[in-house]
This record gives sequence, structure tokens and C-alpha cells, in this order.
Amino acid sequence: MVRRNPNMAKLPTAYLFREISRRKKIFMEKNPTVKVISLGIGDTTEPLPPHVMKGLVDGARKLGTRQGFLGYGDEPGFSELREKIAQKMYGGKVDAEEIFVSDGAKPDIGRFQILFGNNVSVAVQDPAYPVYVDSSVIMGQTGGYDNSARRFDNLVYMPCTPENDFFPDLEHTPRTDLIFFCSPNNPTGAVATRDQLRRLVDFARNNNSIIIFDAAYREFISDPELPKTIFEIEGAREVAIELNSFSKLVGFTGVRLGWSIVPNQLKYDDGSSVKHDWNRVVTTIFNGASNVVQYGGLAALDDEGMKEMERLVSYYVENARIIKEALGIIGLKTYGGSNSPYIWVKFEGETSWDAFSRILQQTCIVTTPGSGFGMSAEGYIRFSAFGHRSDIEEAVRRFDKLLPSKN
Amino acid sequence: MVRRNPNMAKLPTAYLFREISRRKKIFMEKNPTVKVISLGIGDTTEPLPPHVMKGLVDGARKLGTRQGFLGYGDEPGFSELREKIAQKMYGGKVDAEEIFVSDGAKPDIGRFQILFGNNVSVAVQDPAYPVYVDSSVIMGQTGGYDNSARRFDNLVYMPCTPENDFFPDLEHTPRTDLIFFCSPNNPTGAVATRDQLRRLVDFARNNNSIIIFDAAYREFISDPELPKTIFEIEGAREVAIELNSFSKLVGFTGVRLGWSIVPNQLKYDDGSSVKHDWNRVVTTIFNGASNVVQYGGLAALDDEGMKEMERLVSYYVENARIIKEALGIIGLKTYGGSNSPYIWVKFEGETSWDAFSRILQQTCIVTTPGSGFGMSAEGYIRFSAFGHRSDIEEAVRRFDKLLPSKN
Repeated sequence: MVRRNPNMAKLPTAYLFREISRRKKIFMEKNPTVKVISLGIGDTTEPLPPHVMKGLVDGARKLGTRQGFLGYGDEPGFSELREKIAQKMYGGKVDAEEIFVSDGAKPDIGRFQILFGNNVSVAVQDPAYPVYVDSSVIMGQTGGYDNSARRFDNLVYMPCTPENDFFPDLEHTPRTDLIFFCSPNNPTGAVATRDQLRRLVDFARNNNSIIIFDAAYREFISDPELPKTIFEIEGAREVAIELNSFSKLVGFTGVRLGWSIVPNQLKYDDGSSVKHDWNRVVTTIFNGASNVVQYGGLAALDDEGMKEMERLVSYYVENARIIKEALGIIGLKTYGGSNSPYIWVKFEGETSWDAFSRILQQTCIVTTPGSGFGMSAEGYIRFSAFGHRSDIEEAVRRFDKLLPSKN
Repeated sequence: MVRRNPNMAKLPTAYLFREISRRKKIFMEKNPTVKVISLGIGDTTEPLPPHVMKGLVDGARKLGTRQGFLGYGDEPGFSELREKIAQKMYGGKVDAEEIFVSDGAKPDIGRFQILFGNNVSVAVQDPAYPVYVDSSVIMGQTGGYDNSARRFDNLVYMPCTPENDFFPDLEHTPRTDLIFFCSPNNPTGAVATRDQLRRLVDFARNNNSIIIFDAAYREFISDPELPKTIFEIEGAREVAIELNSFSKLVGFTGVRLGWSIVPNQLKYDDGSSVKHDWNRVVTTIFNGASNVVQYGGLAALDDEGMKEMERLVSYYVENARIIKEALGIIGLKTYGGSNSPYIWVKFEGETSWDAFSRILQQTCIVTTPGSGFGMSAEGYIRFSAFGHRSDIEEAVRRFDKLLPSKN
């Protein structure tokens, strides 16, 4: 018989958000009459804006005509879309040839793991988006799961907590080949300052590491002092890859469109080009994002689409403000929630899953347990600002029912 | 510095179809006035049929409404689509829960390689769709490339030629963990008979191997004696996975939609479920096919969509008949081309790339060199039947210009 992939066997539980939806389902079956509000997974809730939607519709219609039909496209995406991303999102400071359009950041992470293979060492922020860790485990870059430490062996965890301003203590971080870094951060909502990112880039340059920088929430940054892309930092082009996504910008979480940037200057120790190998991976095991969806992406980057994007993001930014304020009023200390759609809250004396269950029981609100993102986040809860305004308002009214923990 | 993934370094050249389009581009630049006709890559050319297109349009419109908006969906796809595939494509003989909707067979192959990891042994038909081999190499399942043999070490090649009726000599094939098998075959156009598939399934059962059965061209089968799915064969559910795609059915090569089937009965040597691990891979590094596109898939499986599918496939089937007949008239021995969109031709005394270049020079027709699919196909050329009818008719008129090879 075929042997089970031993790396798969290392994964202890289901993917975090599947587990949450399982628990939500059980709760709803037991409480069929209550309205459960989800401030859990960071999933957009507002309809596609009209101009973007029209882009999809017109794109599909074109494909129904002899002149407009397109079959296989270049795997890295429409040239026009790559150009437009370079111009609209990077002011031309990134070359269109360095941009690879994809079906989103999550599948791109999987492909980057394939690119680098199983002989690389990896560092992640703790807490971190679970896909960085899980995909490293699946690829065999880590050791087994240490049940007492609740961490994987041979994976470097960089604690990011209020104590260190959510930025890793780089002086005490061992060198790794890859460093996953996310800003605005999912889950903590922390946004790295220019100075912090400069320190991160210097650290990577000194160690000859590659940063995989996840900027999927960049449009939530309104403070002009905060960098929206790692490529605002001098020297980043030699050490960083950037991941990005249309998901949170125009409600494409289910429509699927993203991009990654692999700079021309990024090289391996033998001087060969990372971008060259990335192109080989993308052409071999990917067929490009759907052409219908790429037409939607083009519309999103029109002037009209950009305005819709701004309005949509502002809507969720206001949600975040409402939630953050309401949590403050009931006496909870919050982090994040400005320049970011996530509010990060410490529940003293409780585990994250206990707090998750208590919040669900007392308020019928689904959140995300911080410990699902890493052990340094035990006792924290992530509130997501994605939701209809009326649900957000209803949710914050329910916060009054949140009794203090029994401990 | 980070070390280049040594598996990437094993790959000797670009992905086959990128190389062909590079050569085509050079030819077109040198011959700007001629009309080049492509019978190369198997890419659909006819517009999306109206009902399927309407499915995409209506889907996009729904997402633009508050009631119809959908964010992240279940990674394995809409339940309704999984049900419909089970009913319409398998007559209910496959469970909807065993069907995983994807963005196509090619990316699914990459994910299956991740599922099985780098410690499995692999067999491929020779010739074979290059993605099976290249993805095995990238994952580290093979040794290095042997330049003299023009094959990878530690990969089992199963020659499939006219001499063995395009079916592997299983008595002399060593056991491997995985066996990639494609029918109707890309590139040879051969369709495995029920008896052949029975022998393949028995072989896998006796060896405790897993067959990855690629049925992407199944709708080209009109002969009721020929099996359209490996699951028509008794005992296949314990040893086979099936890959499939909407690409060739409704012109979705650029729209991106497919599915794979992982039966409940398929187990590893420790008794654990392959489907369980597959679900974990899919939920961790994939976000599901685009919801807009899934609406298109639902329309394709309506009664009206099924009729459109039949008409579209018939169009390409007639193209194949025309090409096969015309090649016969100029004295070439052909294989495939019925129950399949590919016609496979031996060019005596020439290498495949020489024949490719000669055909391009003499007729301005792009084909695919057989040797790009494997060494057993040296001297063969694949003609693809995808094309506008007028181009196919023009192409076959040009066949007269095909001079005999100089050898």
C-alpha cells in the first residue's frame, strides 16, 4: 500500500476556520432560533460594487463572442492587468514583469512552498495566519508537533505581543531561509512602521534570508506614515517577495484574484534568479487566474473601480472603529482596529477557546480564538470588522451581555 | 543566501507549451505576412456557448446583490455543483462528497503531488502530458535528468506505442506508489478499452498502487463500449483517483474549472483515508474555484448546457475527422483522432522537433513535437483538432505542401 505522507500526519487538527465553522454549526443546531453574528473569519460581506461587477459581466460576455473568446492565457496573467497593478498599486515602482497574477494569496503561499522545497528553514510571526505554518508542515520544512509546547519543531516562532509592540525581537531571532511577515497583521491588526520594516529588511540582508511579505490588508492603511508595501523600504528588492490579493479590496474572497511580486534582483546563493524558478512553478502547476475574474480585476483598477474600492474599505474601517470603541467601553484593552480590519483583545485569565465559547454562549457572536494563530496569542481573541453595518451595531449592543470571566 | 531548490535545477528546459509558443513567435516575427494556424496546444477556440455564458453573467450579477453575495465558500466547491457532477457525469455512482471542485486538472495535479509528498515512487505513460513528470520532479520524487537517456532517474516510464496498442506492458512494469494514466490519451489520442482498464486496475490492486486517472477528454468518447471513467471498472474505488475538467467540455481553458474524485474507499497502508488528507490539503493551500465560475459550471450541467456541451464537442470531433482523413490522403499513418481530439502521426526518419520545424516552414502550421511528451514518442507529431472550422479546412489544404522528409 502507499504510505501516508508523514508530513500530513504531523498536522494535529483541522484548518482553523473549518474548526470554527464546525463549532458554529453545532451551536446553531442547538440554538436554532437565535441569530448568530460572525465576527470570526475575515470574510467580506458587502456585495460586489457595480463597476467591478460590470467588469465581470462584460468579461463573461466577451468570452461568448468569436472575437472576444480567450482560451489558455499566459499563466502570470493578462499583461494589461499586470501593468495596471504596477501603475495603480505601486506607482510604477514595480515592473509589470515582476507581477504574477494569481487566484489569491493562500494558493500562492502553497506554490511558494513548492518553489523553495523542503530543505529551507522558516520563521513565522507568533501569532500568524495559519496557512504559513500548515503549508510549511505539509512541505516537510518542519519537524513534528510538540504537544507540550504546542508548536512544531524546527520552525522559528517570533513572538509578536503588546510587550514588543507586535514586532519580533530580531536580536534574538535565529537566521532562517524564509521569514513570513504580515502587515497590516492578521490576526493582531498591528501595522509595521517604516522603521520596523527597515529593521526587518536589514535583518534579512544581513542573514541572506528571503522575506515573504503578506500585504493583503494594505488598503486599510490610511496613515500616510505607514508603508503599504515592503518595496517602499530601501534594499527590499534583493530580499523580499510580496503577496497581495483583491479579496478584501473589492469583496473577491469568493471570486479569487490576487498577485505576487518577485523582484528581478532576488537571487539564490548560486546567483540564479528566484523569479525564473517562480515562473517555472507557475507555468507548470498553475493555469492562471480565471480570465473572467481578471476582467473584474481590470475594472477594479479603473478610476471608477478604485473609488468603489475606497468606499468599500472605508465601510469596514468604520465597522472596526465601532467594534474597537464598544470593546473599550466595556473595559477591554484592544489592539489593532485602525489601519486594519482586525481588533485584538486580551481576555485575562481565560484560554482563547474558553473565551471563544463564552462569547458565543453569552452573545451568540462567533469570534476567532487567538491561540489558533499561535501560542503567544493564548488568551487573545480576534474580532473581525467584516459584516453588514446593522449586524455590527447589533453585535456591539450584545457586548453588554459579556460577563466577566469566572476566573 | 538561500539555496536554490535542487529539484527545480533538475528541470532541463521550459514547460513544453511555453517553448512552442516561443518558437511560434520567432517564426511569426520572421514571417509577418503569413497566417500561422495552430494545431499545437489543445486549446479550445469556439466562444462560450450562450447558456453557459449566461450562467457566468447571472452569477456575477448575483454577487452584486446583498442577497446573492457570497464570500469564502467551502473549498471543495458548491454542494449543488458537486451533486450535479455526481448525477450528470457519473449517474449517481460517485458520491458528491467524493467530488472536489477545482480550478482545473493541472493545478490539481500540483496539489496531489503535495498530498503524496516526496517519498513516493511514480510511473508515467511514455509519452505523457508533461505536467505529470515536471510536477514529480519539482516535488523531488525523481532523480536527476539523464541527458543521454533524456529521462529522469527514479521515474518509471511506461512506453505506449502502436506496437503495444498504446497500453503499457504491465508484466514488465515495476511497482510504483503512483501511476499516472490518461485516457483518452493526451498526446496519443488512444482510448483505453474496458479490458485494458481492468488490467490496469488489477495491476494497481496487486501492487497496492494508486492510479491518478486523467479523464479530461472523456466527452470525446462516443463509442459506448469505451469507458468514460475509471470508476466503471470494478475495484477501482480502492485504487484510483480521477481528474477531470470543464476546459474541453465548454471552452473553459481560460475560465478555469475542474474536479477530482477521491473515493471513500481509498486508504493508505495505515488504514487512514486519502480523502481526509486531500481535504486538508485543499482547505490549507486552496480557496476553491471562483464562485462566478462555479455558476458557469452549474449552467453547463443544466439540460441546456449539456446540449451545448455536446454540440461543442461534436464540432471538435468533426475537426479531428477532417484532419485525420487529410493526413491519411497524403500517405501518413495516423493514430487517435476518433473518440479523442488528438491525431498522432509518425514522421519516419525525422526527429519530432525536425518534423515540427519542417511543418511550420512548409505549411505555417504549428503542431506539437511528440518527443516533448517523452522519448518513446521521438519521431511523432501531435495534431490538435481544436480550431475554427475554416482554419482546419485551410490547414488541411496546406498539407499538400508537406514534402516528404529529406531522409
